[in-house]
Amino acid sequence: MPELRRDPVTGRWLIVATDRALRPADFARERVVTKGQGFCPFCPGHESRTPPEVLAYRPTGGPNQPGWTLRVVPDKFPALRVEGDLERHGEGIYDRMNGIGAHEVVIESPEHQLTMSNLPEKRVEDVFWAFRDRIQDLKKDHRLRYILVFKNHGEAAGATLEHPHSQLIALPIIPKRVVEEMEGSRRYYELRERCVYCDMLRQEADTGTRVVLETDHFLAICPYAARFPFEVWILPRRHRSHFEQADIPTIENLGWLMRAVLRKIDKVLEQPPFNFNLHTAPVQEPEMPHYHWHLELIPKLTRVAGFEWGSGFYINPTPPEEAAKHLREAGLL
Amino acid sequence: MPELRRDPVTGRWLIVATDRALRPADFARERVVTKGQGFCPFCPGHESRTPPEVLAYRPTGGPNQPGWTLRVVPDKFPALRVEGDLERHGEGIYDRMNGIGAHEVVIESPEHQLTMSNLPEKRVEDVFWAFRDRIQDLKKDHRLRYILVFKNHGEAAGATLEHPHSQLIALPIIPKRVVEEMEGSRRYYELRERCVYCDMLRQEADTGTRVVLETDHFLAICPYAARFPFEVWILPRRHRSHFEQADIPTIENLGWLMRAVLRKIDKVLEQPPFNFNLHTAPVQEPEMPHYHWHLELIPKLTRVAGFEWGSGFYINPTPPEEAAKHLREAGLL
Repeated sequence: MPELRRDPVTGRWLIVATDRALRPADFARERVVTKGQGFCPFCPGHESRTPPEVLAYRPTGGPNQPGWTLRVVPDKFPALRVEGDLERHGEGIYDRMNGIGAHEVVIESPEHQLTMSNLPEKRVEDVFWAFRDRIQDLKKDHRLRYILVFKNHGEAAGATLEHPHSQLIALPIIPKRVVEEMEGSRRYYELRERCVYCDMLRQEADTGTRVVLETDHFLAICPYAARFPFEVWILPRRHRSHFEQADIPTIENLGWLMRAVLRKIDKVLEQPPFNFNLHTAPVQEPEMPHYHWHLELIPKLTRVAGFEWGSGFYINPTPPEEAAKHLREAGLL
Repeated sequence: MPELRRDPVTGRWLIVATDRALRPADFARERVVTKGQGFCPFCPGHESRTPPEVLAYRPTGGPNQPGWTLRVVPDKFPALRVEGDLERHGEGIYDRMNGIGAHEVVIESPEHQLTMSNLPEKRVEDVFWAFRDRIQDLKKDHRLRYILVFKNHGEAAGATLEHPHSQLIALPIIPKRVVEEMEGSRRYYELRERCVYCDMLRQEADTGTRVVLETDHFLAICPYAARFPFEVWILPRRHRSHFEQADIPTIENLGWLMRAVLRKIDKVLEQPPFNFNLHTAPVQEPEMPHYHWHLELIPKLTRVAGFEWGSGFYINPTPPEEAAKHLREAGLL
């Protein structure tokens, strides 16, 4: 019998198909293969082909020279721009603003052909340090209210360049999805005086059926109301609303854990395209007792029905308990 | 300069790229081609290979026999089932229900190789009569609170069979997207004592830049805060919250209009995959002054960044004014 499940934060109901659950082999394969052909503006030696770097980790070399292990540069064709004043306009019943904001690219490694699952552990950890450093710098601009941090891996997941990279988009508004999470978790807190994500951590650790991997600092789970097959959430055990306020051991551990989860996904689903998004509180807001930063990872599997496209209603053909079992049992190598 | 625009109903902000706007030729082509190979359970003569029909329009022949022009059958592998009682369970912090509901398929034509844009006009009109007839029948079951009506056209849009068909899913809950539209339009009504969609109809008809096609009964527009390139909304001029309460001339006209819009889309975007969703009020609720049924159509174009996948935040690379101009200028043949 199929089940309807409700996300405890947003209140979203969705259908989890249970009788004819799709297994890893049921998804059409679209393995991400690094071709390494053509000119790559992110490769060492091509530093002049990107806008000047805003951050770099480099054992050797000067700014915009080779020798770096990670580089952050403004996007060459940004979705938003820093220059100018924020102007708000009405157009009859509609509202608009000019596109003030920032759009940056984190070049995760000098090595073109590596992916986040086979980069050295410290390189993956550094990606998260770069997210933290850039958020702390960008939030000084008080016009910027939210910073979206995400990675598209593979063409099917929206990546236009194959060199390993992730992105930050700083916005003068708070996206609707974020508002919904803030409001949903606040409602839960008002009712119970507990953080819904802290409760989720406790219940998932106790139940165990949806756990993918545990460390001292994190729990990686397939969430109860997963919208997509093999969706994975990475939750820090320590309550903090803002990712950029996470303590040093937490961020150090995130590099290892992220790589480990991606290796499991690569193994079970054969190097699928994926997206991840950092879910964190709006940068200009103080620490919140009801919100808990985390990371949501979605493998982009084909044969997922287009049903939710536009309808906002999801049917997940793989119960999270089955997805977690496959991932839990897969090795780390 | 890119723009941030706000949807007047849901309050969702999104980015509309204006300087490097993508034109029809910039989208990778994934033309829907009917292959007509293999066994098709929806073709005439194969009526026994589907569950028995719940509705048919047929000039000749008996139930579950050839002679029909349109047939509605329960889905063979339904996402939800009618049998049983609705049971609600708690699992710690989570909520679930058993999957009570209905899942039906509207077989739009006996002709396998036709698509909605080249079916005879009356066949397209009949699809909407079938939606109305099935909604009116299904809503008699008071457990069913919402009926999702949608079409996936082409494999990339989630269609698993190529024979022209659309679907209904009757749910014991109201999906989050629907709740958001109801709440957003209610807030607007409380502030202004006007329906936001009626205001939109007036402003769009006056402005004209986002109009795709007008008839006595409908306005087809690319919406101001379009999430996707070439997204089209079809709005009835006459205010009604429930599609199934639309008057006869309105539904008659919808067949012609839908086909005309799809022909324009086929011409401009070369037979792309697409999804459409009927946006209508929950079936057990009375007529609402603040909500206005309509239809949302989304061509599934590749090279649309995976950005929104998971983040819930949209970047539309084609301003709706440009999309509307392309579609407005395209002929109907």
